[in-house]
Order: sequence, then C-alpha cells, then structure tokens
Amino acid sequence: MTNDNLKPIETRISRLFGIDYPIIQGGMIWAAGWKLASAVSKAGGLGLIGGGSMEPDLFRQHIRKARAAVAEKPLGVNIPLMYQHAPGLVKVTIEEEVPIVFTSAGNPQKVADTFKTAGVKWAHCVPNVRMALKVQDAGADAVVAEGTEAGGHNGFEGVTTFCLVPQVADAVEIPLIAAGGIADWRGFRAALILGAEGIQVGTRFAATVESSAAEEYKRAVVAADDTGTYLAFQPLGPIRMIRTPFAEKVRQAEWEGISREKLEELHSKGRGRKGIFLGDGEEGMFEAGQSSGLVKEIKTAGEVVRDFVEGYWKSISQKM
Amino acid sequence: MTNDNLKPIETRISRLFGIDYPIIQGGMIWAAGWKLASAVSKAGGLGLIGGGSMEPDLFRQHIRKARAAVAEKPLGVNIPLMYQHAPGLVKVTIEEEVPIVFTSAGNPQKVADTFKTAGVKWAHCVPNVRMALKVQDAGADAVVAEGTEAGGHNGFEGVTTFCLVPQVADAVEIPLIAAGGIADWRGFRAALILGAEGIQVGTRFAATVESSAAEEYKRAVVAADDTGTYLAFQPLGPIRMIRTPFAEKVRQAEWEGISREKLEELHSKGRGRKGIFLGDGEEGMFEAGQSSGLVKEIKTAGEVVRDFVEGYWKSISQKM
Repeated sequence: MTNDNLKPIETRISRLFGIDYPIIQGGMIWAAGWKLASAVSKAGGLGLIGGGSMEPDLFRQHIRKARAAVAEKPLGVNIPLMYQHAPGLVKVTIEEEVPIVFTSAGNPQKVADTFKTAGVKWAHCVPNVRMALKVQDAGADAVVAEGTEAGGHNGFEGVTTFCLVPQVADAVEIPLIAAGGIADWRGFRAALILGAEGIQVGTRFAATVESSAAEEYKRAVVAADDTGTYLAFQPLGPIRMIRTPFAEKVRQAEWEGISREKLEELHSKGRGRKGIFLGDGEEGMFEAGQSSGLVKEIKTAGEVVRDFVEGYWKSISQKM
Repeated sequence: MTNDNLKPIETRISRLFGIDYPIIQGGMIWAAGWKLASAVSKAGGLGLIGGGSMEPDLFRQHIRKARAAVAEKPLGVNIPLMYQHAPGLVKVTIEEEVPIVFTSAGNPQKVADTFKTAGVKWAHCVPNVRMALKVQDAGADAVVAEGTEAGGHNGFEGVTTFCLVPQVADAVEIPLIAAGGIADWRGFRAALILGAEGIQVGTRFAATVESSAAEEYKRAVVAADDTGTYLAFQPLGPIRMIRTPFAEKVRQAEWEGISREKLEELHSKGRGRKGIFLGDGEEGMFEAGQSSGLVKEIKTAGEVVRDFVEGYWKSISQKM
C-alpha cells in the first residue's frame, strides 16, 4: 500500500474478517447483489450479499458470481432469520462454504450450532442491549448494534445509534459493529469513539453504481434531506423509508389516528420490491436510512470505501 | 490549572461564552434551577436556568441567586418561546442583564432584535437543518442541533443526533452545539467529530444532586436501561419520557390505534410538573432522554463536568 491515506485500519473486526478496513456493506434487500458485494470486498471492506430478497437458487448464483469476482478477498452473506426462505438460505450458505454470515431479524440461537459447526464467522444484528447479550451467549463472533436511523426494518424501541453503541459496548465482550446513520468518515470515526470496532453501512452503498436498486430509488436517496425519511408502522414493526407518496400516505393515516386493522392493510407484502427494485414510489416502499441526507451523489462502491478511509486517516492526522 | 486532565478545551463555543469547557447544561423544566446552573458554571461549563417552568418573578429570583453563587463565572438562561410566560421571561432576562440566552421551541426571529440590541449572546435550539438556517439568518451567535434522543419535547421528524449534527455542520457557519443522547465523554467526543464545537447535556444533569427534580425522577433515570424511554405523542408534538406507568398507558393506546381526540385528552397540561418535580410516575411525565441508560448514579454536577473533561483528555492522549 503506497498511499498513506489508504493504510489499513486495524481493529478486532478487521482481523476477524481478514479485511483491510472494518467497513461492512449491509446486505440490503433488492440492493445488495453480487455486483455490490464483490465491489466492496475488492475495495478492502466486506461485501454482504443480501439474502432477504432472494430464493435459495438465486442466492446460490449470486454467491458464485461474487466469489468469482472477488477471487481471494473475503465475502459474506446476510440472512434475515424471519424470512420464509431463511432455512434454505442457511443451507446454501453452508453448501457453498461461505466463510462469513451476518444474520438479523430473528432468534440467533436457532442458527448458532449450524454456523459454529461449519466454522463460519458469524455476526448477528440487534436493536438493543438485551438482544446483544443473547447474541454473545449464542456464541457469535461479533454483534451489530443498529440504531433506529437505519433504513428498512428496525427495532420497536427506537434506540438511536448514538445511545445504543456505547451501551452495547459496555455490555458485551465480543467485538461490536455499529450500524444506522453512518454515511461518511465522521460517522465512521464517531462510531469507533462510541465503542464500536467496525461499521455496517446500508444506505450509502444502496445508492452506488453497483447497487441493484432502481435508478428512481438511488435518485430519491440523493434527493432526500435530513428530514427525508419516515419511520412507518411503529406498532407493527417499524420500517424506515424515504418520504415518497406512499410513505406520506402512511404518515398521514398514522398521524390522524388509524385503527390497527387498517394499518395492517397498508402494511401489505411486496412493497419493498416494488419500491427499491422497480422504482415505484407511489405503491412501493423506498426503504432507506436517515443518513440519506448525507448522500449527495451516486458513486461507485470503491469510491465510497475510499472516502471513508481517506476521511478517517485525514481526521486522525489532524488530531481530531 | 495544574491537573492536565482538566485542561481547558478550546472551541468557538468555549470562546463565545467564555467558559473552560464547551459543555452546556440544558435549561430543563423543573430540574434546572439556580442550584444546578450555578454548580455547572462553577465547574467550568455553562449553566442555564430553565425558564420554561417558571413565572417571571420566580425566574428573576433564580437568576439573582445563581449570579450570587457563580460570582464572575458566565451564566445563562433558557427560554422556550412557545411558553405562555416567554415575553415576561425575555423582559426579566434583559432587565437583569443576563449575558447568555438559549431559546427553543418557537420562531427565533421574534426575539432576535431584542437580544442583539441588548448585546446578549444568543443561541437557539433546532431539530432540523431548515430551522438551523433560519437561526443563522436571524443573527444568532450559535445554534443547538438537538436529536430525537433528547428528553422532553422534540422535533416532529425524529432526526437523530448522529444524522442531524453533521448535516447542520455542513449547512451553517455559526458554531454548532450538539444535543440529544450525550451523557459521557464518548458522546462528547463523538459530537465534536460529527462537526459540533460544544455539547448541551440535559438528562445527565437532571439526575445530579443539585437538580431540582424529584428523587423519584432521578432514581428512574438511573434505573432506566437503553430501551427505558418512549417517544410519546408524535402526531401532536413528540415528548420523550421514561417508561413509567403513565408512559406505558400512552404507548399502549398509541400502538392499539387511538383517535386524535382521545390522544389530545391524554396530552393534558401539568404532567411535567407532576412527574419531574413532584415525582408522580402514575399521572405525571418523567421527561428524560434516551441517554438515561448511560446514567448509572446520581452525582454532583461538578463531578459530571469533570467526568466529561477527564474522559475527553484521556481519550485524546490515547489517540482515540
């Protein structure tokens, strides 16, 4: 490495996964296919293929394509455990000998034995301290603490990255990855100060060239300002999304007072695909984080990784 | 100053207010009287008397007592502009020649001329970038950007400290104070990394010896964990509070689906006083921030200031 601005950043997370920088690309549904994951891994971070929007066969194809693209670089997958195809995705992960797995949205104990037996490096994503302790007890190698600023599904209690990260850091001994609201070097460094040893970044990577999200979605992320997202469906399971016409319809209904039954009708399936993948802001959901306001242009994933790392080292050299 | 761990921390905010450390104690209703404000100012931070729970005569008494206690140290007040007694509080502030005023909850333009004419140093608190720009345009000396993790009333859009601070920092030229979720040196340093030049701290100071909040309130803050607060009344104007029996009643109603009219009935006046000042968790509101989970004991205000500063310098010396 000749460029001092791109020196490796060593933490327990970068060592655990064998990566240059403890920067993990979240395995977002409909955005994180093999192109994005391999681009991030090639740039020295860790790319994750988002299994949550794939059936097992397609998931296998993405894993194979990504592996061919990254060659010897580390690569991982994300599996939301509540997803109907999760058992099939776990099976494919083991069969394909994927070395790194991130899980979310479900009970970590369910998959602990499978991953430990297979020798997979395993992290699980949580929205509060209680769940972080469960993840540690289940034997995970790392835990992701994700604040309510994150895009898509998140915790019921709305704990923010700023408050969640130090409290999880105080509670667990396994290395901690911060997620939610991180889109530039400032969030990266702040997360490390708060006690994390790595970051997981969703929205910033969802709006890259290699992301499989629709152009309409990427442009909406770029256009959003600080107040450009809404945390909808809080009583059912909060989902953060860009304030498209659909999101505004939900917000209006929720703020006027809507019955639980009517809210469940709005919360129908398929809106993530319609929004993120097909670009329909009228009927689909553009799931994205509050950090959308920090995303000012569509870049390549490699540029995003480089921005994080250069900003990190520059701020360190300026004694910030 | 002989103790290197307590060296001054110089930023535009500490210079603006003439304080050793850019640590401002929020002027919380029912908690921030003259005892708390003077203790913080004597410790090298900036204490603010919270006018939002005082009528003008009482406010004047608190200002005089605090001034006698701090002698030559700087001292300020907080005035929520929507409060019915706000005009009277502004008048007292000018008459008593209070040198520093923080305002919140209202249109900053309304008071700009008064404060500029009087030569008062003036900051206004905002929940989003749009309002921050208005504050700068109104001629304020500084702006406070407060994330949704903060206790009590906060912005409709739920922008978190982690996302709000860097976006306001990018948008304004006047110095920025971060608020919401900051209860220890980690939050302090993270806020500075995100672009702030000072912090405003509420909840950590509300649970100090000198705070005028009820013992029941202080103990509830100490007992709360990471998920121990709830952001109630979002459609009416969000208020963050400890999950006391009253808060749980509101949450239950909101999550089951409540009409706007019924919600307004629950949102009756006087609950802040009943909770924070009188310690009634059944009918009152314990307004407090999400950082409650980081508050593990009741300390003196001076100890809290010292903890922030020692942690700051220690982490700097460890090149974090």
